[in-house]
Amino acid sequence: MTNDRVRTLVEDLERTLVEFIRTHRVTHAEYRSATDVLVAEVQAGEGSLLFDVFLEAAATDTDNHGRPGSVEAIEGPFYLPGAPWLDGPPYVLPQRPEEPGMPLVFHGTVTTETGEPLAGVELDLWHADANGQYSQIHPGIPEWNLRGRFRCDGHGRFEVRTIAPPPYEIPKDGPTGRVLDALGRHYFRPAHLHVKLRHPRFGERTSQLYFPGGEYLDSDVANAVRRELVMDVHVVDDPARTARHDLKEPFVDARYDFAFAADAAMTRA
Amino acid sequence: MTNDRVRTLVEDLERTLVEFIRTHRVTHAEYRSATDVLVAEVQAGEGSLLFDVFLEAAATDTDNHGRPGSVEAIEGPFYLPGAPWLDGPPYVLPQRPEEPGMPLVFHGTVTTETGEPLAGVELDLWHADANGQYSQIHPGIPEWNLRGRFRCDGHGRFEVRTIAPPPYEIPKDGPTGRVLDALGRHYFRPAHLHVKLRHPRFGERTSQLYFPGGEYLDSDVANAVRRELVMDVHVVDDPARTARHDLKEPFVDARYDFAFAADAAMTRA
Repeated sequence: MTNDRVRTLVEDLERTLVEFIRTHRVTHAEYRSATDVLVAEVQAGEGSLLFDVFLEAAATDTDNHGRPGSVEAIEGPFYLPGAPWLDGPPYVLPQRPEEPGMPLVFHGTVTTETGEPLAGVELDLWHADANGQYSQIHPGIPEWNLRGRFRCDGHGRFEVRTIAPPPYEIPKDGPTGRVLDALGRHYFRPAHLHVKLRHPRFGERTSQLYFPGGEYLDSDVANAVRRELVMDVHVVDDPARTARHDLKEPFVDARYDFAFAADAAMTRA
Repeated sequence: MTNDRVRTLVEDLERTLVEFIRTHRVTHAEYRSATDVLVAEVQAGEGSLLFDVFLEAAATDTDNHGRPGSVEAIEGPFYLPGAPWLDGPPYVLPQRPEEPGMPLVFHGTVTTETGEPLAGVELDLWHADANGQYSQIHPGIPEWNLRGRFRCDGHGRFEVRTIAPPPYEIPKDGPTGRVLDALGRHYFRPAHLHVKLRHPRFGERTSQLYFPGGEYLDSDVANAVRRELVMDVHVVDDPARTARHDLKEPFVDARYDFAFAADAAMTRA
Protein backbone atom coordinates (compact mmCIF):
# COMPACT_ATOMS: atom_id res chain seq x y z
CA MET A 1 0.00 0.00 0.00
CA THR A 2 1.51 3.34 -1.02
CA ASN A 3 1.70 6.25 1.38
CA ASP A 4 -0.70 8.21 -0.84
CA ARG A 5 -3.26 5.43 -0.58
CA VAL A 6 -2.84 5.25 3.22
CA ARG A 7 -3.30 9.00 3.45
CA THR A 8 -6.41 8.98 1.25
CA LEU A 9 -8.01 6.18 3.24
CA VAL A 10 -7.11 7.38 6.75
CA GLU A 11 -8.02 11.01 6.08
CA ASP A 12 -11.38 10.07 4.60
CA LEU A 13 -12.01 7.57 7.39
CA GLU A 14 -11.32 10.36 9.90
CA ARG A 15 -13.78 12.67 8.09
CA THR A 16 -16.36 9.90 7.85
CA LEU A 17 -16.17 9.01 11.53
CA VAL A 18 -16.16 12.63 12.74
CA GLU A 19 -19.26 13.15 10.59
CA PHE A 20 -20.79 10.00 12.10
CA ILE A 21 -20.14 11.34 15.62
CA ARG A 22 -21.75 14.67 14.70
CA THR A 23 -24.75 13.18 12.91
CA HIS A 24 -25.59 10.83 15.77
CA ARG A 25 -24.49 13.31 18.44
CA VAL A 26 -22.28 10.61 19.96
CA THR A 27 -21.41 11.78 23.48
CA HIS A 28 -17.99 11.42 25.06
CA ALA A 29 -19.34 8.70 27.36
CA GLU A 30 -20.68 6.77 24.37
CA TYR A 31 -17.41 7.27 22.49
CA ARG A 32 -15.49 5.95 25.49
CA SER A 33 -17.79 2.91 25.76
CA ALA A 34 -16.93 2.14 22.14
CA THR A 35 -13.16 2.45 22.58
CA ASP A 36 -13.40 0.43 25.81
CA VAL A 37 -14.97 -2.43 23.84
CA LEU A 38 -12.35 -2.16 21.09
CA VAL A 39 -9.49 -2.21 23.60
CA ALA A 40 -11.06 -5.02 25.69
CA GLU A 41 -11.53 -7.06 22.50
CA VAL A 42 -7.80 -7.20 21.87
CA GLN A 43 -6.93 -7.63 25.55
CA ALA A 44 -9.33 -10.60 25.68
CA GLY A 45 -7.36 -12.29 22.90
CA GLU A 46 -10.07 -11.92 20.26
CA GLY A 47 -7.70 -10.10 17.89
CA SER A 48 -9.61 -8.55 15.01
CA LEU A 49 -12.73 -10.73 15.50
CA LEU A 50 -15.06 -7.79 16.15
CA PHE A 51 -13.93 -5.99 13.00
CA ASP A 52 -13.95 -9.21 10.99
CA VAL A 53 -17.52 -10.12 11.91
CA PHE A 54 -18.77 -6.78 10.66
CA LEU A 55 -16.42 -5.81 7.85
CA GLU A 56 -14.10 -8.48 6.49
CA ALA A 57 -16.56 -9.85 3.92
CA ALA A 58 -17.13 -6.38 2.46
CA ALA A 59 -13.39 -5.97 1.89
CA THR A 60 -13.25 -9.43 0.29
CA ASP A 61 -15.97 -8.33 -2.13
CA THR A 62 -13.62 -5.62 -3.40
CA ASP A 63 -11.10 -8.20 -4.55
CA ASN A 64 -13.86 -10.07 -6.39
CA HIS A 65 -15.28 -7.00 -8.06
CA GLY A 66 -15.14 -7.23 -11.87
CA ARG A 67 -12.65 -10.09 -11.75
CA PRO A 68 -13.11 -13.24 -13.85
CA GLY A 69 -13.06 -16.67 -12.25
CA SER A 70 -14.44 -17.91 -8.94
CA VAL A 71 -15.09 -15.39 -6.21
CA GLU A 72 -12.80 -15.38 -3.22
CA ALA A 73 -13.99 -15.48 0.38
CA ILE A 74 -12.83 -14.55 3.87
CA GLU A 75 -9.99 -16.68 5.18
CA GLY A 76 -11.25 -16.68 8.75
CA PRO A 77 -8.97 -16.71 11.79
CA PHE A 78 -8.02 -20.40 11.85
CA TYR A 79 -5.94 -21.01 8.75
CA LEU A 80 -2.56 -22.58 9.48
CA PRO A 81 0.16 -22.84 6.83
CA GLY A 82 2.07 -26.10 6.40
CA ALA A 83 -0.78 -28.62 6.61
CA PRO A 84 0.37 -32.18 5.75
CA TRP A 85 0.29 -33.48 2.18
CA LEU A 86 -2.18 -36.35 1.99
CA ASP A 87 -1.31 -39.79 0.64
CA GLY A 88 -3.46 -40.76 -2.31
CA PRO A 89 -5.51 -40.71 -4.33
CA PRO A 90 -7.95 -41.47 -2.90
CA TYR A 91 -7.44 -38.63 -0.44
CA VAL A 92 -8.87 -38.68 3.09
CA LEU A 93 -8.50 -35.65 5.36
CA PRO A 94 -6.68 -36.53 8.64
CA GLN A 95 -9.28 -37.58 11.21
CA ARG A 96 -9.70 -39.59 14.35
CA PRO A 97 -11.01 -43.15 14.27
CA GLU A 98 -14.80 -42.77 14.50
CA GLU A 99 -14.52 -39.04 13.75
CA PRO A 100 -18.05 -37.78 14.51
CA GLY A 101 -20.06 -36.33 11.66
CA MET A 102 -21.63 -37.57 8.45
CA PRO A 103 -19.03 -38.54 5.83
CA LEU A 104 -18.52 -35.91 3.15
CA VAL A 105 -17.02 -36.37 -0.29
CA PHE A 106 -15.88 -33.01 -1.58
CA HIS A 107 -15.02 -33.02 -5.26
CA GLY A 108 -15.03 -30.90 -8.37
CA THR A 109 -12.76 -29.42 -10.97
CA VAL A 110 -10.27 -26.60 -11.32
CA THR A 111 -10.22 -24.90 -14.69
CA THR A 112 -9.22 -21.59 -16.17
CA GLU A 113 -12.03 -19.09 -16.53
CA THR A 114 -12.51 -20.31 -20.07
CA GLY A 115 -12.94 -23.90 -18.92
CA GLU A 116 -9.47 -25.33 -19.67
CA PRO A 117 -8.62 -27.95 -17.03
CA LEU A 118 -5.74 -26.93 -14.78
CA ALA A 119 -3.55 -29.85 -13.77
CA GLY A 120 -1.77 -30.17 -10.45
CA VAL A 121 -3.40 -27.28 -8.59
CA GLU A 122 -2.73 -27.52 -4.85
CA LEU A 123 -5.81 -27.55 -2.60
CA ASP A 124 -5.32 -26.71 1.08
CA LEU A 125 -8.51 -27.68 2.95
CA TRP A 126 -9.45 -27.05 6.57
CA HIS A 127 -12.71 -27.07 8.49
CA ALA A 128 -14.33 -27.53 11.89
CA ASP A 129 -15.09 -30.90 13.47
CA ALA A 130 -18.58 -32.00 14.53
CA ASN A 131 -18.25 -29.85 17.68
CA GLY A 132 -17.46 -26.76 15.61
CA GLN A 133 -13.82 -26.84 16.73
CA TYR A 134 -10.55 -26.57 14.84
CA SER A 135 -7.34 -28.54 15.42
CA GLN A 136 -4.40 -26.53 16.83
CA ILE A 137 -6.91 -23.82 17.85
CA HIS A 138 -9.21 -25.63 20.24
CA PRO A 139 -7.80 -28.05 22.82
CA GLY A 140 -7.95 -31.83 22.77
CA ILE A 141 -7.88 -32.37 19.01
CA PRO A 142 -4.99 -34.19 17.28
CA GLU A 143 -2.61 -31.94 15.36
CA TRP A 144 -3.73 -31.27 11.77
CA ASN A 145 -7.05 -33.05 12.31
CA LEU A 146 -9.34 -32.11 9.39
CA ARG A 147 -6.56 -30.14 7.70
CA GLY A 148 -4.60 -31.28 4.69
CA ARG A 149 -3.21 -30.60 1.22
CA PHE A 150 -3.62 -32.52 -2.00
CA ARG A 151 -3.56 -31.83 -5.73
CA CYS A 152 -6.07 -32.15 -8.50
CA ASP A 153 -5.23 -34.67 -11.20
CA GLY A 154 -4.02 -34.16 -14.75
CA HIS A 155 -7.57 -33.33 -15.85
CA GLY A 156 -8.13 -30.70 -13.16
CA ARG A 157 -10.31 -33.03 -11.06
CA PHE A 158 -10.09 -33.37 -7.31
CA GLU A 159 -11.81 -35.48 -4.68
CA VAL A 160 -11.28 -35.80 -0.93
CA ARG A 161 -13.22 -37.55 1.81
CA THR A 162 -13.82 -35.89 5.18
CA ILE A 163 -16.82 -35.26 7.47
CA ALA A 164 -19.53 -32.63 7.10
CA PRO A 165 -18.94 -29.75 9.52
CA PRO A 166 -21.80 -28.19 11.51
CA PRO A 167 -22.55 -24.45 11.72
CA TYR A 168 -19.73 -22.63 13.49
CA GLU A 169 -20.42 -20.59 16.60
CA ILE A 170 -17.99 -17.68 16.99
CA PRO A 171 -16.61 -16.93 20.48
CA LYS A 172 -19.55 -15.44 22.36
CA ASP A 173 -18.22 -14.91 25.88
CA GLY A 174 -16.02 -11.91 25.09
CA PRO A 175 -16.52 -8.34 23.89
CA THR A 176 -17.62 -9.41 20.39
CA GLY A 177 -20.35 -11.58 21.91
CA ARG A 178 -21.55 -8.71 24.08
CA VAL A 179 -21.82 -6.43 21.03
CA LEU A 180 -23.82 -9.10 19.18
CA ASP A 181 -26.03 -9.52 22.26
CA ALA A 182 -26.78 -5.81 22.24
CA LEU A 183 -27.75 -6.03 18.57
CA GLY A 184 -29.96 -9.05 19.17
CA ARG A 185 -27.91 -11.13 16.72
CA HIS A 186 -26.99 -14.81 17.09
CA TYR A 187 -23.36 -16.03 17.06
CA PHE A 188 -23.47 -18.51 14.18
CA ARG A 189 -21.89 -18.87 10.80
CA PRO A 190 -23.38 -21.48 8.45
CA ALA A 191 -21.44 -24.73 8.02
CA HIS A 192 -18.52 -24.22 5.64
CA LEU A 193 -15.33 -25.62 4.19
CA HIS A 194 -12.24 -23.44 3.93
CA VAL A 195 -9.97 -24.03 0.98
CA LYS A 196 -6.99 -22.31 -0.56
CA LEU A 197 -5.94 -23.04 -4.12
CA ARG A 198 -2.37 -22.56 -5.25
CA HIS A 199 -0.87 -22.67 -8.72
CA PRO A 200 2.69 -21.66 -9.61
CA ARG A 201 1.51 -19.30 -12.34
CA PHE A 202 -1.88 -18.10 -11.09
CA GLY A 203 -0.95 -17.63 -7.43
CA GLU A 204 -3.11 -18.26 -4.40
CA ARG A 205 -6.86 -17.99 -3.99
CA THR A 206 -8.86 -18.26 -0.76
CA SER A 207 -12.37 -19.64 -0.80
CA GLN A 208 -15.01 -20.71 1.67
CA LEU A 209 -17.83 -22.96 0.57
CA TYR A 210 -21.34 -23.38 1.95
CA PHE A 211 -24.07 -26.03 1.92
CA PRO A 212 -27.35 -25.09 0.20
CA GLY A 213 -30.29 -24.99 2.59
CA GLY A 214 -27.99 -25.10 5.59
CA GLU A 215 -28.90 -23.42 8.86
CA TYR A 216 -27.81 -19.77 9.12
CA LEU A 217 -27.10 -19.62 5.38
CA ASP A 218 -29.31 -16.53 5.21
CA SER A 219 -28.27 -15.01 8.55
CA ASP A 220 -24.50 -15.54 8.73
CA VAL A 221 -23.20 -13.47 11.66
CA ALA A 222 -20.26 -12.46 9.45
CA ASN A 223 -22.46 -11.72 6.44
CA ALA A 224 -19.94 -13.56 4.25
CA VAL A 225 -22.14 -15.97 2.28
CA ARG A 226 -22.21 -15.25 -1.44
CA ARG A 227 -24.46 -17.16 -3.85
CA GLU A 228 -21.39 -18.17 -5.89
CA LEU A 229 -19.87 -19.91 -2.86
CA VAL A 230 -22.70 -22.41 -2.31
CA MET A 231 -21.82 -25.96 -3.40
CA ASP A 232 -23.97 -28.51 -5.23
CA VAL A 233 -24.82 -30.93 -2.48
CA HIS A 234 -26.84 -34.13 -2.18
CA VAL A 235 -26.92 -37.15 0.09
CA VAL A 236 -25.86 -40.47 -1.45
CA ASP A 237 -27.18 -43.72 0.05
CA ASP A 238 -26.73 -46.05 -2.93
CA PRO A 239 -24.63 -48.94 -1.48
CA ALA A 240 -22.66 -49.28 -4.72
CA ARG A 241 -21.59 -45.65 -4.47
CA THR A 242 -20.90 -45.65 -0.72
CA ALA A 243 -18.73 -48.77 -1.17
CA ARG A 244 -16.70 -46.95 -3.79
CA HIS A 245 -15.65 -44.54 -1.00
CA ASP A 246 -15.00 -47.31 1.54
CA LEU A 247 -18.18 -46.32 3.37
CA LYS A 248 -21.01 -48.46 4.70
CA GLU A 249 -23.23 -45.47 5.46
CA PRO A 250 -24.79 -42.63 3.44
CA PHE A 251 -22.52 -39.69 2.71
CA VAL A 252 -22.83 -36.08 1.64
CA ASP A 253 -21.67 -35.44 -1.90
CA ALA A 254 -20.54 -31.81 -2.30
CA ARG A 255 -19.34 -30.54 -5.63
CA TYR A 256 -17.68 -27.24 -6.45
CA ASP A 257 -15.96 -26.23 -9.67
CA PHE A 258 -13.26 -23.60 -9.32
CA ALA A 259 -12.44 -21.27 -12.19
CA PHE A 260 -8.95 -19.88 -11.80
CA ALA A 261 -8.77 -16.62 -13.78
CA ALA A 262 -5.65 -16.49 -15.93
CA ASP A 263 -5.12 -12.78 -15.33
CA ALA A 264 -2.19 -11.99 -13.09
CA ALA A 265 -4.14 -9.09 -11.59
CA MET A 266 -6.38 -11.54 -9.76
CA THR A 267 -3.64 -13.44 -7.99
CA ARG A 268 -3.07 -12.55 -4.40
CA ALA A 269 0.16 -10.80 -3.52
CA MET B 1 -26.60 3.81 27.08
CA THR B 2 -29.79 1.94 26.23
CA ASN B 3 -29.78 -1.15 24.05
CA ASP B 4 -31.79 0.75 21.41
CA ARG B 5 -29.11 3.43 21.26
CA VAL B 6 -26.31 0.82 21.00
CA ARG B 7 -28.20 -0.89 18.20
CA THR B 8 -28.81 2.36 16.32
CA LEU B 9 -25.17 3.38 16.57
CA VAL B 10 -23.56 0.01 15.82
CA GLU B 11 -25.88 -0.79 12.92
CA ASP B 12 -25.33 2.59 11.31
CA LEU B 13 -21.59 2.37 11.95
CA GLU B 14 -21.59 -1.01 10.21
CA ARG B 15 -23.48 0.46 7.23
CA THR B 16 -21.18 3.49 7.14
CA LEU B 17 -17.99 1.43 7.18
CA VAL B 18 -19.22 -1.12 4.63
CA GLU B 19 -20.11 1.83 2.39
CA PHE B 20 -16.64 3.29 3.02
CA ILE B 21 -15.02 -0.01 2.00
CA ARG B 22 -17.13 -0.12 -1.17
CA THR B 23 -16.61 3.52 -2.11
CA HIS B 24 -12.83 3.31 -1.75
CA ARG B 25 -12.68 -0.29 -3.01
CA VAL B 26 -10.69 -1.24 0.07
CA THR B 27 -9.06 -4.60 -0.68
CA HIS B 28 -8.81 -7.43 1.79
CA ALA B 29 -5.06 -6.83 2.12
CA GLU B 30 -5.71 -3.15 2.94
CA TYR B 31 -8.47 -4.09 5.38
CA ARG B 32 -6.10 -6.53 7.09
CA SER B 33 -3.37 -3.86 7.32
CA ALA B 34 -5.86 -1.65 9.12
CA THR B 35 -6.97 -4.29 11.62
CA ASP B 36 -3.32 -5.27 12.16
CA VAL B 37 -2.58 -1.67 13.22
CA LEU B 38 -5.63 -1.55 15.48
CA VAL B 39 -4.70 -4.82 17.18
CA ALA B 40 -0.99 -3.88 17.45
CA GLU B 41 -1.99 -0.57 19.01
CA VAL B 42 -3.61 -2.27 22.00
CA GLN B 43 -0.92 -4.95 22.23
CA ALA B 44 1.71 -2.18 22.36
CA GLY B 45 -0.01 -0.71 25.42
CA GLU B 46 -1.29 2.40 23.65
CA GLY B 47 -4.89 1.65 24.65
CA SER B 48 -7.28 3.89 22.77
CA LEU B 49 -4.63 6.47 21.77
CA LEU B 50 -5.09 5.99 18.04
CA PHE B 51 -8.85 6.47 18.27
CA ASP B 52 -8.46 9.36 20.71
CA VAL B 53 -6.07 11.32 18.49
CA PHE B 54 -8.55 11.23 15.63
CA LEU B 55 -11.97 11.17 17.26
CA GLU B 56 -12.17 12.00 20.95
CA ALA B 57 -12.47 15.77 20.51
CA ALA B 58 -15.39 15.36 18.09
CA ALA B 59 -17.28 13.34 20.70
CA THR B 60 -16.48 15.97 23.34
CA ASP B 61 -18.04 18.59 21.06
CA THR B 62 -21.34 16.71 21.25
CA ASP B 63 -21.49 17.22 25.01
CA ASN B 64 -20.85 20.93 24.53
CA HIS B 65 -23.44 21.35 21.80
CA GLY B 66 -26.15 23.83 22.78
CA ARG B 67 -25.21 23.67 26.44
CA PRO B 68 -24.79 26.79 28.55
CA GLY B 69 -21.62 27.40 30.52
CA SER B 70 -17.98 26.71 29.73
CA VAL B 71 -17.23 24.12 27.08
CA GLU B 72 -15.76 20.82 28.21
CA ALA B 73 -12.64 19.26 26.72
CA ILE B 74 -10.98 15.88 26.31
CA GLU B 75 -9.71 14.37 29.55
CA GLY B 76 -6.64 12.83 27.97
CA PRO B 77 -5.12 9.54 29.09
CA PHE B 78 -3.23 10.71 32.19
CA TYR B 79 -5.87 11.79 34.68
CA LEU B 80 -5.51 10.06 38.06
CA PRO B 81 -8.21 10.26 40.72
CA GLY B 82 -7.26 10.97 44.32
CA ALA B 83 -4.71 13.77 43.85
CA PRO B 84 -3.64 15.36 47.17
CA TRP B 85 -5.51 18.31 48.63
CA LEU B 86 -3.16 21.29 48.72
CA ASP B 87 -2.43 23.31 51.85
CA GLY B 88 -3.36 26.96 51.47
CA PRO B 89 -4.22 29.44 50.29
CA PRO B 90 -1.91 30.35 48.73
CA TYR B 91 -1.90 27.10 46.79
CA VAL B 92 1.22 25.69 45.12
CA LEU B 93 1.02 22.54 42.99
CA PRO B 94 3.38 19.80 44.28
CA GLN B 95 6.74 20.17 42.59
CA ARG B 96 10.40 19.37 42.98
CA PRO B 97 12.85 21.95 44.37
CA GLU B 98 14.02 23.88 41.28
CA GLU B 99 11.20 22.37 39.19
CA PRO B 100 12.19 23.37 35.64
CA GLY B 101 9.91 25.71 33.76
CA MET B 102 8.75 29.29 33.99
CA PRO B 103 6.52 29.90 37.04
CA LEU B 104 2.83 30.04 36.20
CA VAL B 105 0.06 31.60 38.25
CA PHE B 106 -3.25 30.11 37.13
CA HIS B 107 -6.25 31.98 38.47
CA GLY B 108 -9.81 32.94 37.67
CA THR B 109 -13.35 32.56 38.85
CA VAL B 110 -16.07 29.95 38.90
CA THR B 111 -19.59 31.26 38.46
CA THR B 112 -22.95 30.02 37.32
CA GLU B 113 -23.74 30.70 33.69
CA THR B 114 -25.51 33.87 34.79
CA GLY B 115 -22.42 35.13 36.61
CA GLU B 116 -23.27 34.23 40.23
CA PRO B 117 -20.07 33.29 42.06
CA LEU B 118 -19.95 29.62 43.09
CA ALA B 119 -18.23 29.10 46.43
CA GLY B 120 -16.16 26.05 47.32
CA VAL B 121 -15.93 24.44 43.89
CA GLU B 122 -13.21 21.75 43.83
CA LEU B 123 -10.52 22.15 41.16
CA ASP B 124 -8.43 19.09 40.29
CA LEU B 125 -5.43 20.26 38.24
CA TRP B 126 -2.79 18.16 36.45
CA HIS B 127 -0.28 18.89 33.71
CA ALA B 128 3.04 17.88 32.17
CA ASP B 129 6.42 18.93 33.51
CA ALA B 130 9.01 20.87 31.47
CA ASN B 131 9.98 17.60 29.72
CA GLY B 132 6.40 16.97 28.67
CA GLN B 133 6.07 14.14 31.19
CA TYR B 134 3.43 13.28 33.78
CA SER B 135 3.96 11.94 37.31
CA GLN B 136 2.86 8.32 37.89
CA ILE B 137 2.84 7.86 34.10
CA HIS B 138 6.43 8.55 33.13
CA PRO B 139 9.30 7.22 35.25
CA GLY B 140 11.54 9.17 37.64
CA ILE B 141 9.04 11.82 38.74
CA PRO B 142 7.87 12.09 42.38
CA GLU B 143 4.35 10.83 43.02
CA TRP B 144 1.66 13.47 42.44
CA ASN B 145 4.20 15.97 41.05
CA LEU B 146 2.23 18.74 39.31
CA ARG B 147 -1.08 17.22 40.38
CA GLY B 148 -3.32 18.53 43.12
CA ARG B 149 -6.73 19.61 44.35
CA PHE B 150 -7.88 22.87 45.92
CA ARG B 151 -11.07 24.89 46.21
CA CYS B 152 -12.11 28.31 45.09
CA ASP B 153 -12.93 30.77 47.84
CA GLY B 154 -16.27 32.08 49.05
CA HIS B 155 -16.41 34.50 46.12
CA GLY B 156 -15.76 31.84 43.49
CA ARG B 157 -12.14 32.92 43.02
CA PHE B 158 -9.21 30.54 42.72
CA GLU B 159 -5.46 30.89 42.34
CA VAL B 160 -2.66 28.32 42.23
CA ARG B 161 1.03 28.54 41.43
CA THR B 162 2.76 25.94 39.27
CA ILE B 163 5.07 25.95 36.22
CA ALA B 164 4.17 26.53 32.57
CA PRO B 165 4.09 23.22 30.66
CA PRO B 166 5.60 22.87 27.18
CA PRO B 167 3.82 21.38 24.15
CA TYR B 168 3.16 17.68 24.69
CA GLU B 169 4.47 15.08 22.27
CA ILE B 170 2.28 11.98 22.12
CA PRO B 171 3.97 8.56 22.00
CA LYS B 172 5.44 8.33 18.52
CA ASP B 173 7.30 5.02 18.52
CA GLY B 174 4.24 2.77 18.35
CA PRO B 175 1.43 2.09 15.89
CA THR B 176 -0.16 5.52 16.40
CA GLY B 177 3.12 7.22 15.52
CA ARG B 178 3.42 5.11 12.38
CA VAL B 179 -0.06 6.14 11.25
CA LEU B 180 0.78 9.81 11.85
CA ASP B 181 4.04 9.33 9.93
CA ALA B 182 2.10 7.97 6.96
CA LEU B 183 -0.17 11.02 7.07
CA GLY B 184 2.78 13.41 7.30
CA ARG B 185 1.49 14.79 10.61
CA HIS B 186 3.60 15.81 13.61
CA TYR B 187 3.10 14.29 17.07
CA PHE B 188 2.47 17.42 19.13
CA ARG B 189 -0.33 18.84 21.19
CA PRO B 190 -0.05 22.51 22.21
CA ALA B 191 0.88 23.23 25.85
CA HIS B 192 -2.15 22.78 28.10
CA LEU B 193 -3.47 22.51 31.63
CA HIS B 194 -5.94 19.79 32.54
CA VAL B 195 -8.54 20.61 35.14
CA LYS B 196 -11.68 19.00 36.49
CA LEU B 197 -14.23 21.02 38.43
CA ARG B 198 -16.54 19.40 40.94
CA HIS B 199 -19.54 20.77 42.74
CA PRO B 200 -21.98 18.76 44.87
CA ARG B 201 -24.98 20.08 42.95
CA PHE B 202 -23.62 20.70 39.46
CA GLY B 203 -21.51 17.57 39.16
CA GLU B 204 -18.15 17.21 37.42
CA ARG B 205 -16.79 19.04 34.41
CA THR B 206 -13.57 18.30 32.52
CA SER B 207 -11.62 21.08 30.86
CA GLN B 208 -8.30 21.56 29.15
CA LEU B 209 -6.87 25.03 28.74
CA TYR B 210 -4.44 26.43 26.17
CA PHE B 211 -2.02 29.34 25.88
CA PRO B 212 -2.77 31.95 23.18
CA GLY B 213 -0.08 32.09 20.52
CA GLY B 214 1.44 28.83 21.72
CA GLU B 215 3.19 26.47 19.33
CA TYR B 216 0.89 23.88 17.70
CA LEU B 217 -2.21 25.77 18.84
CA ASP B 218 -3.43 25.69 15.23
CA SER B 219 -2.18 22.21 14.38
CA ASP B 220 -2.97 20.11 17.46
CA VAL B 221 -2.42 16.45 16.52
CA ALA B 222 -5.62 15.64 18.46
CA ASN B 223 -7.58 18.53 16.91
CA ALA B 224 -8.94 19.36 20.38
CA VAL B 225 -8.27 23.10 20.69
CA ARG B 226 -11.43 25.17 20.86
CA ARG B 227 -11.38 28.98 20.91
CA GLU B 228 -13.30 28.97 24.19
CA LEU B 229 -10.53 26.97 25.88
CA VAL B 230 -7.74 29.50 25.33
CA MET B 231 -6.75 31.40 28.50
CA ASP B 232 -5.93 35.08 28.94
CA VAL B 233 -2.19 34.99 29.35
CA HIS B 234 0.57 37.57 29.91
CA VAL B 235 4.04 37.60 31.40
CA VAL B 236 4.48 39.57 34.63
CA ASP B 237 7.91 40.96 35.51
CA ASP B 238 6.89 43.72 37.92
CA PRO B 239 8.97 42.92 41.08
CA ALA B 240 6.14 44.01 43.35
CA ARG B 241 3.85 41.47 41.73
CA THR B 242 6.40 38.66 41.52
CA ALA B 243 7.19 39.15 45.23
CA ARG B 244 3.50 38.77 46.03
CA HIS B 245 3.81 35.18 44.71
CA ASP B 246 7.10 34.48 46.53
CA LEU B 247 8.92 34.73 43.20
CA LYS B 248 12.11 36.60 42.27
CA GLU B 249 11.65 35.98 38.55
CA PRO B 250 9.02 36.84 35.92
CA PHE B 251 6.02 34.55 35.80
CA VAL B 252 3.22 33.64 33.42
CA ASP B 253 -0.16 34.96 34.52
CA ALA B 254 -2.94 32.78 33.06
CA ARG B 255 -6.56 33.57 33.74
CA TYR B 256 -9.64 31.54 32.97
CA ASP B 257 -13.19 32.08 34.16
CA PHE B 258 -15.36 28.99 34.38
CA ALA B 259 -19.12 29.22 34.00
CA PHE B 260 -20.78 26.22 35.58
CA ALA B 261 -24.20 25.79 33.96
CA ALA B 262 -26.91 25.24 36.56
CA ASP B 263 -28.80 22.75 34.44
CA ALA B 264 -28.55 19.20 35.69
CA ALA B 265 -28.46 17.98 32.08
CA MET B 266 -24.95 19.32 31.73
CA THR B 267 -23.47 17.46 34.66
CA ARG B 268 -21.47 14.37 33.79
CA ALA B 269 -22.87 11.02 34.84
